[in-house]
Amino acid sequence: MTQFSCLESSIELGSIMESALPKLLTKTYGSSKKVILVDSNTNEQCLQILFTHLDGLENAEIIEIPAGEDNKTMEICFSIWEALSEMEFGRNDVLLCLGGGMICDLGGFAASIYKRGMHCIYIPTSLLAMVDASIGGKTGVDLGSFKNQLGTFTEPSHVFIDPSFLQTLPEKEKLNGLAEMLKHGLIDDAKHFEKLASISFEDLSDELIVESLHIKSKIVESDPKEKNQRKLLNFGHTVGHAIEGHFLNSDHKMDHGLAVAHGMLVEAKISMINGFLSDKDFDRIKSVLQKRFNIQTFTNEENMEFISIMLQDKKRVNGSRFTLLKGIGQAVFDVKVKDEVVMEALKVLQ
Amino acid sequence: MTQFSCLESSIELGSIMESALPKLLTKTYGSSKKVILVDSNTNEQCLQILFTHLDGLENAEIIEIPAGEDNKTMEICFSIWEALSEMEFGRNDVLLCLGGGMICDLGGFAASIYKRGMHCIYIPTSLLAMVDASIGGKTGVDLGSFKNQLGTFTEPSHVFIDPSFLQTLPEKEKLNGLAEMLKHGLIDDAKHFEKLASISFEDLSDELIVESLHIKSKIVESDPKEKNQRKLLNFGHTVGHAIEGHFLNSDHKMDHGLAVAHGMLVEAKISMINGFLSDKDFDRIKSVLQKRFNIQTFTNEENMEFISIMLQDKKRVNGSRFTLLKGIGQAVFDVKVKDEVVMEALKVLQ
Repeated sequence: MTQFSCLESSIELGSIMESALPKLLTKTYGSSKKVILVDSNTNEQCLQILFTHLDGLENAEIIEIPAGEDNKTMEICFSIWEALSEMEFGRNDVLLCLGGGMICDLGGFAASIYKRGMHCIYIPTSLLAMVDASIGGKTGVDLGSFKNQLGTFTEPSHVFIDPSFLQTLPEKEKLNGLAEMLKHGLIDDAKHFEKLASISFEDLSDELIVESLHIKSKIVESDPKEKNQRKLLNFGHTVGHAIEGHFLNSDHKMDHGLAVAHGMLVEAKISMINGFLSDKDFDRIKSVLQKRFNIQTFTNEENMEFISIMLQDKKRVNGSRFTLLKGIGQAVFDVKVKDEVVMEALKVLQ
Repeated sequence: MTQFSCLESSIELGSIMESALPKLLTKTYGSSKKVILVDSNTNEQCLQILFTHLDGLENAEIIEIPAGEDNKTMEICFSIWEALSEMEFGRNDVLLCLGGGMICDLGGFAASIYKRGMHCIYIPTSLLAMVDASIGGKTGVDLGSFKNQLGTFTEPSHVFIDPSFLQTLPEKEKLNGLAEMLKHGLIDDAKHFEKLASISFEDLSDELIVESLHIKSKIVESDPKEKNQRKLLNFGHTVGHAIEGHFLNSDHKMDHGLAVAHGMLVEAKISMINGFLSDKDFDRIKSVLQKRFNIQTFTNEENMEFISIMLQDKKRVNGSRFTLLKGIGQAVFDVKVKDEVVMEALKVLQ
């Protein structure tokens, strides 16, 4: 069992049965009402595991919401708030978020707003949620095509990361987490990047997850509200969010991780055009991303549309600013980049 | 010009022309986009005053929402978020809330969520907003009959309190603020209470407003997230919110201040039944409230309905807890009170 804290959250990685969760539910929150937020997938695949192995959830309520990123909306939050109200939940009661990034982002947001903040625990079940969404306190929902446009900075009191939940996950879903892990390597730790580049998913060890978590944790602790250093974590996301947002309301949705992989490729290219990144490092990044992800091609019109969405991105302050790479394992934030350069770099996807 | 700070907010009381606002708009936020949130009343009565006297608002956008407490909803927030998105506002742009408690509560909430928090300035125009809603960081909207069920603790960076806006206010509206000022006296300062009991509205001085603000400010600074001491400010509000909530979706809405006046009378009565408050002090409070406010009578059924709403009140933790008076100017929080006692006390309104 690995334990550490990040901001206001206490984080444990290991078997949930051996974690502090059972005691938390029966002692600390012994007299609190509990509700478990699941989506249709985690209701089917993960909830029973929780009930089988944990005391203290006998009287827990269940709120199920539809699975899928396009349900990360204020309307879904509204249905959660109405359910909590009907069940007469108070601010000292507990919401447990059992699911992937969508469940953690949306559930954490719903809990942070309900009665100005009720108790919240994350039990991430996807690799993406384990290495990214569950730590750092960013909660939120989408507004139309704009990702995480509405949200708060609020940490859950506890995060329990049990890698055995990953067995419930299809390979495709694990790629979402891998993209963020590769990002952690690219911005902060070349060795982490190279380890991830070479292993197969069967070899994805708890140690690698912890390594990735520690990189993210170190960065968010240095700058919780993303005024400076935390912007490093946006590498790949300015372009990635635009691509993801573009397809959000279409029939061909793109997974977050795949979108971020595309974003990292384009932003590495911007880094190279800007003279920050060597051709050799760019080629290495490109080859790893192309090996791991099904990198697609886009038309000129689609590229224009991505740029238009980027202008509305929340990281925009008087023009488009990017986190760029100065090498593998080294990044800088707040680099102003002209739209023409972004357009030029997007051609790497043509 | 009186200046002080409360939590993260810098507060100024005096003529807005002589305040730091003009410089703030042209220098600190010189390169930020501005949007002014108004309701139909403040659009008509206050906005022109701002435009006439202040530089830096030439290009400000205006968002007008319908006036009235029943518009303090998530749906109205949604329309604000969509407008901000359409106008491509970023997290470094500024929302100015020009209005009463509803505009400050709802606008502050909308700003705290938009892109996880954009800049926000309050310019309260009602007495209630000046002495209560504008300081302490509680933002929120209602959910059905439940007041402030959804919200955050987020302070605006600046609050500019210009009492000359009170001239735009009908007497009835001022009573809302008076109720909160009387409350500040009742829980913390007997002299403040007696001053307010004797003056007429024409004599309501800046000094009295500052006195009231200082009481609230002292209490919220000691306990920003309302875990202990801040609960003192809930005096009159557990019953008051239930009464206000009951009439929220009816044809006979009750003003917040009037509801709180009723709530204070009932909760003073509970204090007396509990042996905390002397008969003499209760009679004094009753006579002041009856002189100042149009205290109404309710049926047994209505009283039962109030209790049912109270059980869902966000201050509830395993039963109903009240802030009660131990004298005029002295209060205690978290006193557990049985429903029968509340029912008994409600008879003071029969």
